[in-house]
Amino acid sequence: MAVYTHLSAEDLADLIAEYGVGELVSAKGIAEGVSNSNWLVETTQDRFILTMYEHRVDADDLPFFLGLLDHLSAKGCPVPRTIHDRDGAAYRMVDGKAVALIEFLPGVSIDTPTPAQARAIGEALAGIHAAAANFPGERANTMGLDTWRDLLGSCGDDGLAEIDPTLPALVASELEYLGANWPQDLPRSVIHADLFPDNALMLGDRVSGLIDFYFACTDLTAYDLAVTHAAWCFGPGGRFRPAIAEALLAGYESHRPLSADERAALPVLARGAAMRFIASRAYDWLNTPAGALVTRKDPMDFARRLEFYVAKGTEAFPRGNG
Amino acid sequence: MAVYTHLSAEDLADLIAEYGVGELVSAKGIAEGVSNSNWLVETTQDRFILTMYEHRVDADDLPFFLGLLDHLSAKGCPVPRTIHDRDGAAYRMVDGKAVALIEFLPGVSIDTPTPAQARAIGEALAGIHAAAANFPGERANTMGLDTWRDLLGSCGDDGLAEIDPTLPALVASELEYLGANWPQDLPRSVIHADLFPDNALMLGDRVSGLIDFYFACTDLTAYDLAVTHAAWCFGPGGRFRPAIAEALLAGYESHRPLSADERAALPVLARGAAMRFIASRAYDWLNTPAGALVTRKDPMDFARRLEFYVAKGTEAFPRGNG
Repeated sequence: MAVYTHLSAEDLADLIAEYGVGELVSAKGIAEGVSNSNWLVETTQDRFILTMYEHRVDADDLPFFLGLLDHLSAKGCPVPRTIHDRDGAAYRMVDGKAVALIEFLPGVSIDTPTPAQARAIGEALAGIHAAAANFPGERANTMGLDTWRDLLGSCGDDGLAEIDPTLPALVASELEYLGANWPQDLPRSVIHADLFPDNALMLGDRVSGLIDFYFACTDLTAYDLAVTHAAWCFGPGGRFRPAIAEALLAGYESHRPLSADERAALPVLARGAAMRFIASRAYDWLNTPAGALVTRKDPMDFARRLEFYVAKGTEAFPRGNG
Repeated sequence: MAVYTHLSAEDLADLIAEYGVGELVSAKGIAEGVSNSNWLVETTQDRFILTMYEHRVDADDLPFFLGLLDHLSAKGCPVPRTIHDRDGAAYRMVDGKAVALIEFLPGVSIDTPTPAQARAIGEALAGIHAAAANFPGERANTMGLDTWRDLLGSCGDDGLAEIDPTLPALVASELEYLGANWPQDLPRSVIHADLFPDNALMLGDRVSGLIDFYFACTDLTAYDLAVTHAAWCFGPGGRFRPAIAEALLAGYESHRPLSADERAALPVLARGAAMRFIASRAYDWLNTPAGALVTRKDPMDFARRLEFYVAKGTEAFPRGNG
């Protein structure tokens, strides 16, 4: 979470002039996004987020990411649209890096959602899945099961044990389980794949923005709900919050009911979601120098969620009484 | 340059509610300020900068700093005023740290000023000196000659030599010179004491904001001009820019003419200004872990400026032909 690149006011003013959105009035580097530098930019006409894509985001993926934002925004989803430059381009190159100008959306990221907020998030996620149905772009999930295996394999048992002595055995047994039981025949669509509270903006109980689509890809639709469940339904100390899970699922199903197969698959999908974040966090934990610009996130938070999903099965996905 | 503290949206909303400035709409942590965490906050009424004072800023100094902003703002200086809470307090405590809500000012920080911009900065600086004349607060300069000696002494000759082999001798001879020649009888006032381009917001050639008064203190008025000279009048590669120096001085004197003694003292004051930044940067260089959140600044940039001031004397302070 940082601004990795210095852009002078002169560079910024020249860049903004390419968009025909008024003159630069203010630009503040913001502490948001782990793979990009971001500025909150104000012009004489409006406010925008300027994103510079650093390492981790492949410029070849930008037409997918930015086209998806435009598609979803046009369908009425609370997603920032891309501002195109005077030549119609969705991104430009500055000093060899791609930059995009993106609509500014109001709202704040909440730490501890209420049931009403969780319900709204479920509805918004289902709205994205429905609206993306006729989006022509496709992108493979670069953070799927094979990648979890690769990342955790490169950590090695010694590395994982350095994080926590219980981690190597948990990872080994779960990778085997997930390899044997990962669903193949569920509905697929474009998914966000990283819908943490950080990536949702809210005004009260309303979702004003879903942001940071830079893991979006084509994969099992219900996996996105499982990721969101793993990211939202645990409170301080990692305690499961059943009322939040129930509201999230009810909100989702109010817009896009799950098939019986999808619902039955939620426990294994959630185990996969937990493993996905164990994998990336364990890798980053072992490969990020202490004190670096990016704050390391504890892989064990998701190891505990994984153990919870293993122990509880369908109980983690309560249905309401309504 | 970072956000050191996490404030949840819930905490922020509760805090903002204490000010009677509308409801929280957006809050973005911004990469600004080396001693504080800052958020660009939007409410249903207006925009603000929320500052949380971390280490380095003594809460006992806040009445001086925040009172100064209010005084200067009321006098028409382009300085952000402090928003007082419903009880009239200029700052509040959150989790044991002081926070203040400060007016948002438009404008961008420029890297390479034009003469017109340097002239405007000179005028604005003189405006502050004039407006502060009847400000009742006083604060000793905690970054004066004694502190340079302490900081550089704690670096030691070995530490300084690690930065650059020429640094110990330069520091020793200059500290001796400055101790023997530092002016005592020049006019004193409140000074900004850190007016780098980072701390000035500009809209074209107009100064829209002078910010970050957290080194402000009572000291020799002309020393502030010398600091500003050292901070603004050197271009890429450290090359002296005489047209910028001339414009800065002319702008300053258009509002507050220097006395003959002040003008004669500028070379020694500028040597002191360069030493002040050598001292803090050398100390930080040796005491900041590589890869920490704060980017280390090269002390040698100011060692070269110091050598320039030693070599050039009054030539560094050109008068225009006008």
